[in-house]
Amino acid sequence: MKRLSIAIAAATLAIAAPAAAQDLAGGAAAVRDKALTDQTAWSIAESLTTEVGPRMVGSQGMERARDWAVAKLKALGFENVRVESFTTPAWSRGAESVEVVAPWPVKLHVLGLGGSVSTPAGGITAPIAVFTSYQTMLDQPPGALAGKIAVVTQRMGRTQDGSGYGAIGPQRWTGAAEAAKRGAVGYLMRSLSTDDTRLPHTGGGAPAGIPAAALSTPDADLLENMARRGQPVTVRMAMTSSVNPKAQAWNISGEIRGREAPDEVIVIGGHLDSWDPGTGAVDDAAGIAITTAAAKLVAQAGPPRRTIRVVMWGSEEQGGSSEAYAAAHKDEAAKIVVAGESDSGAGRIWSVSLPKAGADHAAMKAFRTSLAPLKVGVSPEPPAFGGADIRGIIGLGAPFVDFNQDASRYFDLHHSADDTLDKIDPAELAQNVAVWASFLHTVANSDVEFRTKPAP
Amino acid sequence: MKRLSIAIAAATLAIAAPAAAQDLAGGAAAVRDKALTDQTAWSIAESLTTEVGPRMVGSQGMERARDWAVAKLKALGFENVRVESFTTPAWSRGAESVEVVAPWPVKLHVLGLGGSVSTPAGGITAPIAVFTSYQTMLDQPPGALAGKIAVVTQRMGRTQDGSGYGAIGPQRWTGAAEAAKRGAVGYLMRSLSTDDTRLPHTGGGAPAGIPAAALSTPDADLLENMARRGQPVTVRMAMTSSVNPKAQAWNISGEIRGREAPDEVIVIGGHLDSWDPGTGAVDDAAGIAITTAAAKLVAQAGPPRRTIRVVMWGSEEQGGSSEAYAAAHKDEAAKIVVAGESDSGAGRIWSVSLPKAGADHAAMKAFRTSLAPLKVGVSPEPPAFGGADIRGIIGLGAPFVDFNQDASRYFDLHHSADDTLDKIDPAELAQNVAVWASFLHTVANSDVEFRTKPAP
Ligand SMILES: [Zn+2]
Ligand SMILES: [Zn+2]
Repeated sequence: MKRLSIAIAAATLAIAAPAAAQDLAGGAAAVRDKALTDQTAWSIAESLTTEVGPRMVGSQGMERARDWAVAKLKALGFENVRVESFTTPAWSRGAESVEVVAPWPVKLHVLGLGGSVSTPAGGITAPIAVFTSYQTMLDQPPGALAGKIAVVTQRMGRTQDGSGYGAIGPQRWTGAAEAAKRGAVGYLMRSLSTDDTRLPHTGGGAPAGIPAAALSTPDADLLENMARRGQPVTVRMAMTSSVNPKAQAWNISGEIRGREAPDEVIVIGGHLDSWDPGTGAVDDAAGIAITTAAAKLVAQAGPPRRTIRVVMWGSEEQGGSSEAYAAAHKDEAAKIVVAGESDSGAGRIWSVSLPKAGADHAAMKAFRTSLAPLKVGVSPEPPAFGGADIRGIIGLGAPFVDFNQDASRYFDLHHSADDTLDKIDPAELAQNVAVWASFLHTVANSDVEFRTKPAP
Repeated sequence: MKRLSIAIAAATLAIAAPAAAQDLAGGAAAVRDKALTDQTAWSIAESLTTEVGPRMVGSQGMERARDWAVAKLKALGFENVRVESFTTPAWSRGAESVEVVAPWPVKLHVLGLGGSVSTPAGGITAPIAVFTSYQTMLDQPPGALAGKIAVVTQRMGRTQDGSGYGAIGPQRWTGAAEAAKRGAVGYLMRSLSTDDTRLPHTGGGAPAGIPAAALSTPDADLLENMARRGQPVTVRMAMTSSVNPKAQAWNISGEIRGREAPDEVIVIGGHLDSWDPGTGAVDDAAGIAITTAAAKLVAQAGPPRRTIRVVMWGSEEQGGSSEAYAAAHKDEAAKIVVAGESDSGAGRIWSVSLPKAGADHAAMKAFRTSLAPLKVGVSPEPPAFGGADIRGIIGLGAPFVDFNQDASRYFDLHHSADDTLDKIDPAELAQNVAVWASFLHTVANSDVEFRTKPAP
């Protein structure tokens, strides 16, 4: 501890002013290279998935996650560790059983969709109407699905940029509501999954007033194959769930305080909550691990000029943390230098999208230069999304970045029991940390400005 | 129907004697090429997995499978369709729940092993002792595991020839019994799996008197990671099961009757029973489909000289069908020309092992020649196994073959919920049918003899 204090004091003297261009480049390269062999991110992901596991907002797991987050940030030397409370509606899963009862019995592997209502006691039993394309279901007129369980089995495509998810997303997001409008009494859908395991993938859906569940992909195939025979197929759905309209939730943060411009804050992080079937490894222990480890590596290189704040948002999956964070931080919004969230798994970053403003600053030149050995491209397009949990502060004017992760495998795992630690590749995780650490180093040790200044 | 009868009559005249070498070669090539585009095998596998699904010996699923088999063989034009009854002990699964209760709660994904006893009502709760190598558990002295749940987490290697399974098999086959000898009150093991999904793989184990279950591979990792922290880890196992000591079972067969030497019988097939979590697609609807379709293709090319009998054995997974079949057919054992079973999934055949006797016969030359475009090698070694269900008739002197399937992916699926139709590659399935059809054609239309004749 004493040795560290001396190092910090020496470093403080050295960088009381924005670092020179060559210092930025050298520093970025140094933290990048250190990140590639550093074990901090892996150890954070291992700790969260092993010691806490699933952590739905409103659950006991989330309470344990909160305590874990505070303890972990403190243990890693973060300052100003804060727990910011808010409340949000939290859906939770009860017992779920869905089975074909005729023409022959088949137990189906399903997970209820977040927001699904319970069935009446005893369940509902109804014939199914199978649509291999979501559009075909939407093309049905009002009443066409009266008394039926609608089943949509459209397949999701595998893409590097994750765009296959957005393309098929309405099948989950609005499918049950659209089915209900047409008279359906229940809704089943092929999981939004690029894998072929017998594990369904859950996720939130719009309120529909009917029970809704995701089928594993082999079970979706099975219903297609049964329906193709032309005999009526009858399914029984028995599901329970509950909603806490005002569940306690927490955004938890810790800081590497800036020594020269502590009020200029870089806000980064991932989300602490997860869906319930897995241990929330790629979604989003990885994002927590990457951003926390990157900030720690920058701190170890010497205290930065500006403050780096790592936030572990507390309710991404069911929503609420972005709004709560923006509400709590609106007064400092003008001082947020840049914001970023890591929330597309643990695949390597293949490109970064940076704000146009600041692109010519020595800091961003140093950052871009540092990317070459990491095989990261720089997108010609400006950032478009940032992350679900920073939409609120982006709305308040915070500049933001997109670090695009290879999502080719992400949707094999996303929101399923398969989202476990073993799916994280330590080398790919380290590559993410290297990109983030290099970025944080250059931004935090410079005066680069990402806001477009109004014309004078 | 009439058209077919005329064709059969004409063909019968043409091959009243063993076919000439060039006819054998031409016929083998013809059925091989037809097999590569024929849909019969796929349609059989689709039908069995969709219309019946899981079919444990002793279950209602198996009764439906029996009826399915009879109907399918008749529909495909097989003669002498027979249901041969026998009884065998049948284990069946009840409710199963295994969870970590301290130092923090974790629900584990498990499947009881066949033969596992029930826990007392309320389950058993005990500290675990984790062994990352099976040998390390075996090295424990008597009493060393007293009062503990033994956990073995050794990993299985992926191999083309499936030898990784045999190498690690004792972890399931005798692990619980060995743990019990050392005082353990329960046994958990990493599934014998080459995949990383959250789905456990079941299978039979030797009687041990203690409850025993397989963990999914991510759950095995989790227990390793928890145990590595050095705190005691306590697990609760609550499992029920039952055994029917004299369950009804059936070996079901149908024949393509030989026109010249009908008593000379080629016995081939797969097993109709399956474990319960999947739909028994690669284990062993595939074997049923491959051998049935191959026999059908040979019949379509014209009635063969010898009889081809397809057998759907009724209790491979828990044992009994091999012995029952041998007992019922001991009087005809001397007339069995050759036997073979397809029971290593649906991966392509990469080599065949043929009896030394008969190798110089024109039939086997024609068969070997037909293999070239299928990329199948001929092993210099004689057949070593044949298949679990033909061990009985092999014991009675029946010659046999090994058609070695690429098992690289088989143990991703084997005995798990992931054993579903979508895992069968239609092109690989067709390649299997082509090899079997070519073999059946040459053997059934010749007088090749696989028995080594005693010296005169
Ligand atoms: Zn996420
Ligand atoms: Zn088998």
